[in-house]
Amino acid sequence: MHPAPVATEPPDLLRRLQSLCRGRDLDTLGARLTELAELAGGDLARVEAGMPRLSPDATTVERGASHLLERGGKKLRPLCVALAARTGTGFDERGCELAIAVELVHAATLLHDDVVDLGETRRGAPSSRMVFGNAVSIFAGDWLLIDALRRVRNAGPPDLLPRLLDTIEEMIFAESLQLDRRGKLDTTEAQWMSIVKGKTAALFSWALFAGGRSGGLEVAQCETLATYGHHLGVAFQAVDDLLDLTGDPERTGKALFSDLREGKLTYPLILSLGREPEFEAVLEEVCRAPEPSVDDYRRVLATLDRTRSLEDCRSLAHEHVALAKRAALSLAPSRARDSLLTVADATVHRPA
Amino acid sequence: MHPAPVATEPPDLLRRLQSLCRGRDLDTLGARLTELAELAGGDLARVEAGMPRLSPDATTVERGASHLLERGGKKLRPLCVALAARTGTGFDERGCELAIAVELVHAATLLHDDVVDLGETRRGAPSSRMVFGNAVSIFAGDWLLIDALRRVRNAGPPDLLPRLLDTIEEMIFAESLQLDRRGKLDTTEAQWMSIVKGKTAALFSWALFAGGRSGGLEVAQCETLATYGHHLGVAFQAVDDLLDLTGDPERTGKALFSDLREGKLTYPLILSLGREPEFEAVLEEVCRAPEPSVDDYRRVLATLDRTRSLEDCRSLAHEHVALAKRAALSLAPSRARDSLLTVADATVHRPA
Repeated sequence: MHPAPVATEPPDLLRRLQSLCRGRDLDTLGARLTELAELAGGDLARVEAGMPRLSPDATTVERGASHLLERGGKKLRPLCVALAARTGTGFDERGCELAIAVELVHAATLLHDDVVDLGETRRGAPSSRMVFGNAVSIFAGDWLLIDALRRVRNAGPPDLLPRLLDTIEEMIFAESLQLDRRGKLDTTEAQWMSIVKGKTAALFSWALFAGGRSGGLEVAQCETLATYGHHLGVAFQAVDDLLDLTGDPERTGKALFSDLREGKLTYPLILSLGREPEFEAVLEEVCRAPEPSVDDYRRVLATLDRTRSLEDCRSLAHEHVALAKRAALSLAPSRARDSLLTVADATVHRPA
Repeated sequence: MHPAPVATEPPDLLRRLQSLCRGRDLDTLGARLTELAELAGGDLARVEAGMPRLSPDATTVERGASHLLERGGKKLRPLCVALAARTGTGFDERGCELAIAVELVHAATLLHDDVVDLGETRRGAPSSRMVFGNAVSIFAGDWLLIDALRRVRNAGPPDLLPRLLDTIEEMIFAESLQLDRRGKLDTTEAQWMSIVKGKTAALFSWALFAGGRSGGLEVAQCETLATYGHHLGVAFQAVDDLLDLTGDPERTGKALFSDLREGKLTYPLILSLGREPEFEAVLEEVCRAPEPSVDDYRRVLATLDRTRSLEDCRSLAHEHVALAKRAALSLAPSRARDSLLTVADATVHRPA
């Protein structure tokens, strides 16, 4: 694989967020996002340019990986690496390799998750396993993982690799817990948090830590950044859970109720079930049906609304945004620190 | 996971090989295997004792991995690490970690391969995916890979980790090529060799190199050991191909013609197809049938015999055994070097 030509378009996520903020009483956030784009837009273009690209003699496994990578994705984890590095001495070539690596680890988990969950679409297109088959998707995930670890090992500093290995182990064990809880309607809020901590927050946490280290920060400051990353990850997942129930499939790239129908109990559903135990029968019916009907959507959303579960899920996201910002505010003031605050605030407004 | 109590039984593979040699004009090899067992039997017991074991609060993914690890397996790759280390200063704790790591990488590939090939039995028992499901088998493979990389990173020396990452990438690309060739009867000997080099020989090669490094040998000597490992791996795979066609399922732990029925063209079949093109129709019929009949077995084996394909596959194995031994003989004389020669000779007589 060869590096791609340098991307020149503004980062996709920022553009979508900016358009969303306009005229929605979020003009201030919109302006802050413009500042963020000015600061880190070039960083994301460098990450994009460094991602693995297909050479003419690429293997089928590389093509399977590339099929997913070419869809772009939000690049939120690389953005975290770049901003963390910029709270220190800046985002250099080594930082860029770390940013690419964290995106590759994320992509590897998507390739394996889609096989596990029989996922048919991803990022608004047929998933890699639908185009190339399960086998290619499994080996493509393995390969991206290896490529990511090699980049981290080469970029240094040397404490980042063992920390990433521990992080990936945590992600795997969280997937294991999620499998154990699959289809079980008695999942608790604590179990949800354990899964989210490992599945989502751990990799954000590593991204922030790694960025900080590559920016020459001391380990204690990097741990502060990691704390920011943990809370950002929890907030991100809480919003993800909301989007599964109320998102716009055109924007999210996946069907509504996907998590629910894969037997994954999202946070608003856990809250609703605790508040209205008879909701269990409704959910069982929705999961049994070959396709949820308009009536199913209405019944589920009416219950979520009545039990204030969507509201409380959004509150949980806001709580963790606040905790993330508190961590960031203990760092020295800088434009990058401001951007970390912006990313945290924007998380709860993201459309996908 | 906790270390297990120290194993006291003699290594399984050596015991089986010894019993096979008795009274079969292989008494000399039998005696050499006894020497090998005296030299390295304790090493393999240490490897066995250091393998990950289940703690009471183990995750389902760990249980899925353990299900495979508990079946033991031949431990040929750890034996290679131990003997290579003993051609130098000896097999110490770091060498033992490397030996465990290479076995874990091998086990990880088996867990993913069984999902890819829908394998129902492994090591004479239901495969992990049959007991725990595909999802657990995928994540268990991911986890063993991560655990192996962590052990290599911790054990050092530092050149071993990037070399292992490159080796695993080579294994993945070989799997990709194997997938591309699946069910294609026009696979060439050169394509077979490319697949075998990556799928089997590369990890043997790393095992020998790593063992040598942990035994304090210079890199040039370790490269010689790696060459031995490469040829041992090719010979090993050629014998594996024979066992798929003529092995005793009670000993190999898998049904006859498994490779063929998974669409993998083994070396003797490639030779036969080149020599009797009309054999293609027979193979297509065997693969189409829900279960090969006694008559199918007879027809396939008669063709393999008539075309001397089994014989020539065995010759290929002998050639690579000779090349492996030539590499080993360029090392300084030692009991460990003698044992490497024994391992090479024994490879062509192995029952499983």
